[in-house]
Amino acid sequence: MAIIVVGHKNPDCDSITAAIAVADLLSKRGMEAIPVAQGPVTPDAAFVLEKFGLTAPAIETDATDKEIALVDHSDLAQALDNLDKGKIVAIVDHHKLGDVTTPNPLEIWVMPVGCSGTVIKAMYDFYGIAIPKGIAGALLCAILNDTVLFKSPTCTDADKAACEALAKLAGVADYKALGMDMLKIKGSVDGIPAVDLMNRDYKDFNMGGKKVGIGQVEVLDLGLLDKIKPALVEECKKLQADGRHTVMLLLTDIMKEGSEILVVSQDASLVEKAFGGKVGGALNSMWVDGCMSRKKQVVPPMEKAFA
Amino acid sequence: MAIIVVGHKNPDCDSITAAIAVADLLSKRGMEAIPVAQGPVTPDAAFVLEKFGLTAPAIETDATDKEIALVDHSDLAQALDNLDKGKIVAIVDHHKLGDVTTPNPLEIWVMPVGCSGTVIKAMYDFYGIAIPKGIAGALLCAILNDTVLFKSPTCTDADKAACEALAKLAGVADYKALGMDMLKIKGSVDGIPAVDLMNRDYKDFNMGGKKVGIGQVEVLDLGLLDKIKPALVEECKKLQADGRHTVMLLLTDIMKEGSEILVVSQDASLVEKAFGGKVGGALNSMWVDGCMSRKKQVVPPMEKAFA
Repeated sequence: MAIIVVGHKNPDCDSITAAIAVADLLSKRGMEAIPVAQGPVTPDAAFVLEKFGLTAPAIETDATDKEIALVDHSDLAQALDNLDKGKIVAIVDHHKLGDVTTPNPLEIWVMPVGCSGTVIKAMYDFYGIAIPKGIAGALLCAILNDTVLFKSPTCTDADKAACEALAKLAGVADYKALGMDMLKIKGSVDGIPAVDLMNRDYKDFNMGGKKVGIGQVEVLDLGLLDKIKPALVEECKKLQADGRHTVMLLLTDIMKEGSEILVVSQDASLVEKAFGGKVGGALNSMWVDGCMSRKKQVVPPMEKAFA
Repeated sequence: MAIIVVGHKNPDCDSITAAIAVADLLSKRGMEAIPVAQGPVTPDAAFVLEKFGLTAPAIETDATDKEIALVDHSDLAQALDNLDKGKIVAIVDHHKLGDVTTPNPLEIWVMPVGCSGTVIKAMYDFYGIAIPKGIAGALLCAILNDTVLFKSPTCTDADKAACEALAKLAGVADYKALGMDMLKIKGSVDGIPAVDLMNRDYKDFNMGGKKVGIGQVEVLDLGLLDKIKPALVEECKKLQADGRHTVMLLLTDIMKEGSEILVVSQDASLVEKAFGGKVGGALNSMWVDGCMSRKKQVVPPMEKAFA
């Protein structure tokens, strides 16, 4: 039976392209492997797949009786259902180490870089396997996507070097222009219902025993969200009422390089402690200057506040 | 402040040499790092360090306010005290993924091979850093030690290839003879108190919420342990009475390639379920043919039985 390679719930561009690339790499190392996803691809991921002639992974949500390679996550809250009923054979990621455990030895590649795509580029090099042109293009876009064109504080020299090499392999002359086209699609909010924006890049975490949900919407200009902000607050409230201690939504202004954070919490003082500011105003929100990365700038201080 | 590089509690040869090697590698990548250990070195590790001109790491048991690289483990029960009060920046291992989590992104190298030494050899190669002669010898011995001269079912082709390369770097012509000298010291039981044999290679695990301790004593001939077996059972009982659901001690016969497992448990049927046999006799034990590896042949079926 083939190993299924799968990213996190609410798959983003990195989770989709990483599943495709790691399945290719495992196959070329002699293991049967196929990419799957826990949900449909986002518009920006669809743009990338079409651009590079790749197919969207089939949907799979349950791990029972399967061999599994996790990409782009190691948190149970973001993983397949019934993960303990499958066998995890590999993890490839660039986030904090989550609460997934295994009874068996396995392969793990995690690096503190901006994107799983950068880790996967290193894996191809380590195993001496050539990266197919289309996959190189997809990994390139994933890195540009996760690092917001290198602007995010999560971006490292390794990410930039990987993009240079992948752009050559993919035959992309101006990768920053390609990245901007992709981010325009990603940041499009026109006519999109609040519930879809809320879920666009939403993840649950277990923090000190409490369930905490953190979503993010990245736009080129925060003004684009003015009308829909109250509806987004309502979506946060719905999620919070459904068994969560806290739900936050980062409204990230890519150009201003900061985020307005909407907060619905049983104890907003924990959020205030995490960021050293005040939650308030009509939307119960706070502006955090320079905050662009959930992974690097939001999850670590929140974990500490909940510890 | 330097990163401390540390193996598991009751450090074995692999944990000691891995800490020394990873500290060297991190230092050469530009990070300040020093090896430490959670206890004194074993006689076989002392033999290896002296043979290759290396110094035993200083003892350290607490993680508070330190930056830490974990080697050869990812289980909290085997880690430094107050691990959550330190910051884990790297994990290098070859076991199952344990219950360590982090709030921050980090570097993780885990491979399903016989020894952390094999993973570390791959890391030096990946970063293009030359392995110092003494460290090459120490890693070589760690691999021969963990794989019982390639006899253990945990041994992979990658372990064998690493030994070939490391032996050349270390200038060791007959590495199997060196390994046998080391295993004779490791397997020496003459005049050693039962409590020391019990602790020689002992690890605690969290299995389905229960604390389970599993020790291992490897000898060239099980007959060497006949007289001390009743005292070893008493040591198991003491540990079990100290808050553990189950304590097992594997008495491994390297030549016969199997283990007699002493069992003291609140519910020995779980052990019987794990191995499909009966626990019994004067020592409350069972013989498991072919069982040489705690990691590959004992922990996974026990985790399943406790799930």
